[in-house]
Amino acid sequence: MDISAALVKKLRDVTGAGFMECKAALTEANGDIEAAITLLRKRGLASAAKKAGRTTSQGLIGSYIHMGGKIGVLVEVNCESDFVARTDQFAALVKEIAMHIAAADPKYTRRDEVPAEALDKERDIYHAQFASSGKPEEVVKKIVEGKLDSYYEQVVLVDQKFIRDPNVKISQLIADATAKMGENITVSRFARFKVGEV
Amino acid sequence: MDISAALVKKLRDVTGAGFMECKAALTEANGDIEAAITLLRKRGLASAAKKAGRTTSQGLIGSYIHMGGKIGVLVEVNCESDFVARTDQFAALVKEIAMHIAAADPKYTRRDEVPAEALDKERDIYHAQFASSGKPEEVVKKIVEGKLDSYYEQVVLVDQKFIRDPNVKISQLIADATAKMGENITVSRFARFKVGEV
Repeated sequence: MDISAALVKKLRDVTGAGFMECKAALTEANGDIEAAITLLRKRGLASAAKKAGRTTSQGLIGSYIHMGGKIGVLVEVNCESDFVARTDQFAALVKEIAMHIAAADPKYTRRDEVPAEALDKERDIYHAQFASSGKPEEVVKKIVEGKLDSYYEQVVLVDQKFIRDPNVKISQLIADATAKMGENITVSRFARFKVGEV
Repeated sequence: MDISAALVKKLRDVTGAGFMECKAALTEANGDIEAAITLLRKRGLASAAKKAGRTTSQGLIGSYIHMGGKIGVLVEVNCESDFVARTDQFAALVKEIAMHIAAADPKYTRRDEVPAEALDKERDIYHAQFASSGKPEEVVKKIVEGKLDSYYEQVVLVDQKFIRDPNVKISQLIADATAKMGENITVSRFARFKVGEV
C-alpha cells in the first residue's frame, strides 16, 4: 500500500513518533490512522494524551450566562477564515445565538440530529390525537407531518424563531450573516446547562 | 393503585393539565409519570414544550473563554443551598474549575463515566506494552492496573492534578471547598469546545 507523506506527517503531528515508525504503522494499518495510533501506543511510541483532533475550520466559541449563573450556554460558530472570526460583527452574531439558545432552549442544532426514536414517538402521539377524528388516513398523515414541522420549530435550533424577531428563523439569521460577511457560516454545536436539570 | 397527591401535583406542574386528567392518566399508567405524560399528550392535554426536568439541587453554571474564543468551557457546580451558591467564594471555585478544564482538557467528570470499551482498549494497549517483558502475568496485570490509574489522571476531571497546584487533585480542591463552606459540593457536568475540533 502507498502511504502518502501527508498522512505520515499527520500521524507524526498527532503522536509525536518518528517518521519511520509512523510510516511502518500506517502500512501495517492499511492507511487507517486511528488503527495506526493504537499500534504505536501498543509499541510505547505514542502517548494517550495526544488526540487525533481534526481542526477543520475557523470560528469562535461563545458563552452566555443567564440569571446570575442559573442557566449557561456554550456555542461554537464556524466560518472560513480567522480574519472573519476576529471581527466584531462575527463576535456579535455568536453572542446573539448564545443568548437565543439560553432563552429558547433548543435540544438539537440541526434536524438530522433528532434521533429516529424521538421522531417516531412524536408521530405516534400526533397520530393518536387525530386517529379518532374521522378524517381519512392520508389526511391524518399530512396533519402529522405538518405537526412534525412545528415539533422541529420547538426543538431544532436552526428551525427556531429568533427570540429578538419572531419573523426570522435562526437559519435565516445565519444566512443573512453569511451574505454580509461573505463566508459560509455554520453553528456546529452547543451546550445549555440549567442548574439542577439533568 | 393509590396515586399520591404529590405525584398528581408534579404531573400538573410538568404538563399544565387539570387535576382529574392528571390523576386519571397516572392511574392508567400505574404511577409512571413519563407514561402519564405521553398519555396526556396523546389526548391533547399536554404540550411537548414542557419538560419533566427535575431540579434537584442548587449551584452555579460557570463559563470560561480562552484564547480569544478558540476554547470555551461550561461547567455546573452544585451545592445544597442557594445561599452558598450566591457567595463570592463559591463563584470563585466555579471559575477555577472552569479554567482548569480549559487547560487540562478532561474527557469525563467522574470515573464511572468512562465507557467500558475505552477502559478495555487502554488495558489492551498497556498489556501489549508489557506482554513481551518476560514478567509473570500477575505482575503485568498489576502494572496494567497502575497504568490505568494514570489514565484516569489524564482523562477524569476529579482525578486530575489542579493546574494551579499539581500537589492537589481536583477532588481534593472540591473536598476543601466542602469543608470551608459547610455544604456538600459536586461537579455534575461540563462541556469543553475547541474551535474546529469535533
